[in-house]
Amino acid sequence: MIVDGWFHERGQLWPGQAMSIKVEEVLFEGKSDFQDVLVFRSSTYGTVLVLDGVIQVTDRDEFSYQEMMCHVPMNLHECPRRVLVVGGGDGGVVREILKHDTVEEVVLCEIDRMVIEMSKTYLPGLACGYNDPRVSVQIMDGAEYMRQHMNYFDVIITDSSDPIGPAETLFQQPYFEAIASALTENGVMCSQGECMWLHLDIIKPTLRMCEKLFPSVGYAYTCIPTYPSGQIGEIICSKRQLDVSKPLTQRTIPDLKYYSPEVHSAAFVLPEFCRRALLEEEAPSGDP
Amino acid sequence: MIVDGWFHERGQLWPGQAMSIKVEEVLFEGKSDFQDVLVFRSSTYGTVLVLDGVIQVTDRDEFSYQEMMCHVPMNLHECPRRVLVVGGGDGGVVREILKHDTVEEVVLCEIDRMVIEMSKTYLPGLACGYNDPRVSVQIMDGAEYMRQHMNYFDVIITDSSDPIGPAETLFQQPYFEAIASALTENGVMCSQGECMWLHLDIIKPTLRMCEKLFPSVGYAYTCIPTYPSGQIGEIICSKRQLDVSKPLTQRTIPDLKYYSPEVHSAAFVLPEFCRRALLEEEAPSGDP
Repeated sequence: MIVDGWFHERGQLWPGQAMSIKVEEVLFEGKSDFQDVLVFRSSTYGTVLVLDGVIQVTDRDEFSYQEMMCHVPMNLHECPRRVLVVGGGDGGVVREILKHDTVEEVVLCEIDRMVIEMSKTYLPGLACGYNDPRVSVQIMDGAEYMRQHMNYFDVIITDSSDPIGPAETLFQQPYFEAIASALTENGVMCSQGECMWLHLDIIKPTLRMCEKLFPSVGYAYTCIPTYPSGQIGEIICSKRQLDVSKPLTQRTIPDLKYYSPEVHSAAFVLPEFCRRALLEEEAPSGDP
Repeated sequence: MIVDGWFHERGQLWPGQAMSIKVEEVLFEGKSDFQDVLVFRSSTYGTVLVLDGVIQVTDRDEFSYQEMMCHVPMNLHECPRRVLVVGGGDGGVVREILKHDTVEEVVLCEIDRMVIEMSKTYLPGLACGYNDPRVSVQIMDGAEYMRQHMNYFDVIITDSSDPIGPAETLFQQPYFEAIASALTENGVMCSQGECMWLHLDIIKPTLRMCEKLFPSVGYAYTCIPTYPSGQIGEIICSKRQLDVSKPLTQRTIPDLKYYSPEVHSAAFVLPEFCRRALLEEEAPSGDP
């Protein structure tokens, strides 16, 4: 993956294209029980964490993803006290959750302990929330954990990798059923929702499935240079009837670099090819 | 630039990162009077046009850029009859302009004849407007052409490459002064506005300069996977006082894949790091 000092992100979910980042120094290269793990210092993106050949976070642009994955669902709940993150071992989403002063308990349920350890060692700007007394870590399968905690969490955020590899089940119906059960009455969920430029064929059936389980479902997107095609989506569902594109609350959130209430709403305005593909009854053609 | 069958877009305006596209067949490789020209057939992005090593258009995602560069300014004018495109020799913006039935005359002013010829040969889906009787082509410098056509155009669109190379002057004050003079009373302009993730230090002074020349100035963005960092901006100015984020008209535009009136407005909602950097009085720090 590293050739002539450049890391190339080639993957079967984005054939024929690759983001490349110049490497200054490889900090860690190894294999956990679940995946290949690579951490390197880049010349212009800070530290980069790569799992199974796919960029997960870079110091330089991680804020856009973490803020949108967290603050969109958090601002759709009037008083989120208990929050669960499934995946997200780098800690970035937890860091954002802790900015909400309503929060009493955050559980991070990550299957791969090595991701957490790597982040604590090499990505301290993301892992800073692990020291907060409100945060606990469970090393186990997220769906299993949720089945043991029915009607418990106000917000559940699934910060997963792509649906090939360890995160495959996190895009399937039993997983979303477990979320619906683990959420409290007015609970809100957010799941990593792949990219509209590449994966309408994954996004559309996932949304249809969510519509069977939740009265309110929406699709938003975040711009992020180091994810394939420069964009990543979020699937947002609420257990109550509401317009998920409108923040419910106006809590003050410190240190925002991407999210604002205006950005929240604009993120649900989809380019025509995407809006039509996700609305249409027939199967989408795939890529634009 | 092509190594082991992949084209790598490395450039001094985006150090340490590169978009790579798999090449199936090189269709043309040469040098015009102004720049290096490369056209190749890719495995997943259709035909790709590259100038001086920088991707200009790919068949697969060009629509997002062309639609936003055209329909945002066109929909800020009640009846655009005469439209000028500076640069844009591929013809994509002209194709979009011709979708507005108010249009009587489109002039394309491109300094490099070879770009037009390449597009007619290899990118017929973009060059289709060249056969329209309303369209004429001027092979000359855009600023010079505008100085000969004072108070003539309702909309002027600058579809330029980056401010290093032949397009350098298109980011400087004399050029914007020429636009202001060539526009009619309620005229609107749109200029390629670089990328918020990379070039806040270019964008901010350009906006400040525009504010001296136009009563209404705004900055919007388009998502496009094959431009550096997956995004490109647009500088929008009007000679009358109006909110450029709100379309003035509701003309029916056929065959849209990206633009809608809702997308028009959402494109002006900037992530916090960008909004703050462009608003602040002091010089921006550059990248986020």
